[in-house]
Amino acid sequence: MFKGIKSIVSVIYSFLKFAIIKLFRWKEFRYYYIERFSPSTMLNIYKNSRIDLGKQVRAHSGVRISSTPGARIVIGDNTAINYNCIIVAREKIVIGRDCTFGPNVVVYDHDHDFRNSDIMNGSKYVTKPIVIGNNVWIGAGAIILKDTTIGDNAVIAAGSIVRGSIPGNSITYNKTETVSKQYL
Amino acid sequence: MFKGIKSIVSVIYSFLKFAIIKLFRWKEFRYYYIERFSPSTMLNIYKNSRIDLGKQVRAHSGVRISSTPGARIVIGDNTAINYNCIIVAREKIVIGRDCTFGPNVVVYDHDHDFRNSDIMNGSKYVTKPIVIGNNVWIGAGAIILKDTTIGDNAVIAAGSIVRGSIPGNSITYNKTETVSKQYL
Amino acid sequence: MFKGIKSIVSVIYSFLKFAIIKLFRWKEFRYYYIERFSPSTMLNIYKNSRIDLGKQVRAHSGVRISSTPGARIVIGDNTAINYNCIIVAREKIVIGRDCTFGPNVVVYDHDHDFRNSDIMNGSKYVTKPIVIGNNVWIGAGAIILKDTTIGDNAVIAAGSIVRGSIPGNSITYNKTETVSKQYL
Repeated sequence: MFKGIKSIVSVIYSFLKFAIIKLFRWKEFRYYYIERFSPSTMLNIYKNSRIDLGKQVRAHSGVRISSTPGARIVIGDNTAINYNCIIVAREKIVIGRDCTFGPNVVVYDHDHDFRNSDIMNGSKYVTKPIVIGNNVWIGAGAIILKDTTIGDNAVIAAGSIVRGSIPGNSITYNKTETVSKQYL
Repeated sequence: MFKGIKSIVSVIYSFLKFAIIKLFRWKEFRYYYIERFSPSTMLNIYKNSRIDLGKQVRAHSGVRISSTPGARIVIGDNTAINYNCIIVAREKIVIGRDCTFGPNVVVYDHDHDFRNSDIMNGSKYVTKPIVIGNNVWIGAGAIILKDTTIGDNAVIAAGSIVRGSIPGNSITYNKTETVSKQYL
Repeated sequence: MFKGIKSIVSVIYSFLKFAIIKLFRWKEFRYYYIERFSPSTMLNIYKNSRIDLGKQVRAHSGVRISSTPGARIVIGDNTAINYNCIIVAREKIVIGRDCTFGPNVVVYDHDHDFRNSDIMNGSKYVTKPIVIGNNVWIGAGAIILKDTTIGDNAVIAAGSIVRGSIPGNSITYNKTETVSKQYL
């Protein structure tokens, strides 16, 4: 019951919030009538950037999505983004349909250009697009870095740090060795 | 002084919030009079699930705890859960007494059944219980995966990704090699 | 436009909030007129602790900064701290100027003293100061542990777990091997 109410609240909330954003970002923002963003999500669409949401995109509380001037974010139909995920584009992030993001996932298509800037938190960045296919599952706390392509139906294990080309229909993880030592 | 006020606010807030939840989830929710959940925590108890809180459980802001239908979560007396921890059960998560969770810890007793589902964010999951003993300390950002048992007095290092059986009185970490390279 | 409004709101909000904190923590808190903390940040300054903020420190939403009695936190001019970073001092954390923290960074200068405490979430800690130089960039999700010194202009890669002495003008990361296996 609570779940049903929460979903309805999220759908109505998204509809109203997105309509207001649309007023100010007419060309920049495209979405469908039924989206399901929790009230405590953040959607930052800068002037001259672009965000396209497919049908029934779901974002849980704490999610932050931001596209800066000149950048573009596309999220496909029926993709679900869990608690506290952060997606920030300075060039382009494309996410397919039917994807699932676990909580705390970070997707950044840029680095600070520390080699060529006097001050890192100035305005220079090195960017490379990120393209995530359809039906991809990204586990809790994974970090997707710039210049990454992930094929359809891929699984990224929880806590992985990923850059580069990931094939479809695969499970990807950072190799780790877990050690337990007695301390008593 | 601030700390004292915050604690009292959290205790009163928890008492009121939990009483309201109890009205709707009479059989599903058990707790004590004195719990200390920050106002910006989330406790999702689905119909036919079960959450049992011991005495004086503490949850800091941003904590999210969720049990889905058929699932059970038990948290023992005097356990403290730090900022932004996320605990989601689809089968069973048992946490002992006197445990400490650092910030950003994720505890999930399920995976998406990507091998047998056409669409990952559909409703199929593979679940296995998680049992965490007494007086366990889980460091910041650790991820506890399904099918994990952690013995009493164990320490899980910050940032570890853990699955399987962890002995008591031990410190557990993922082996890492840290590399620093000059770039100038 | 939105960005400009947000910045102004953050500056005004910070000014008012910090003035109120200053009333209660006259000796403990030092800051400048222009700081830019998002409204949903947390600044916990305990009695007999100390927090010094340089000019134009920026903190995005979800940031939590906390200094416990006897502890000190210093953050230099023009340092920017991204979403959901958590900085907790029980002894001393010094951060230089012009630094950039990615989202979800955790900085803790203490561990629970599990070897010498009967109960971990009791009051005993092992502390060692953390000193971060100027113009340091700490990537998303990095964890900075106690007893760490980071030199000027250093870069800490996303997701790194760092302890010890990191030289300046270097890029530091945890060596990982990424494996992709076909599952179909």
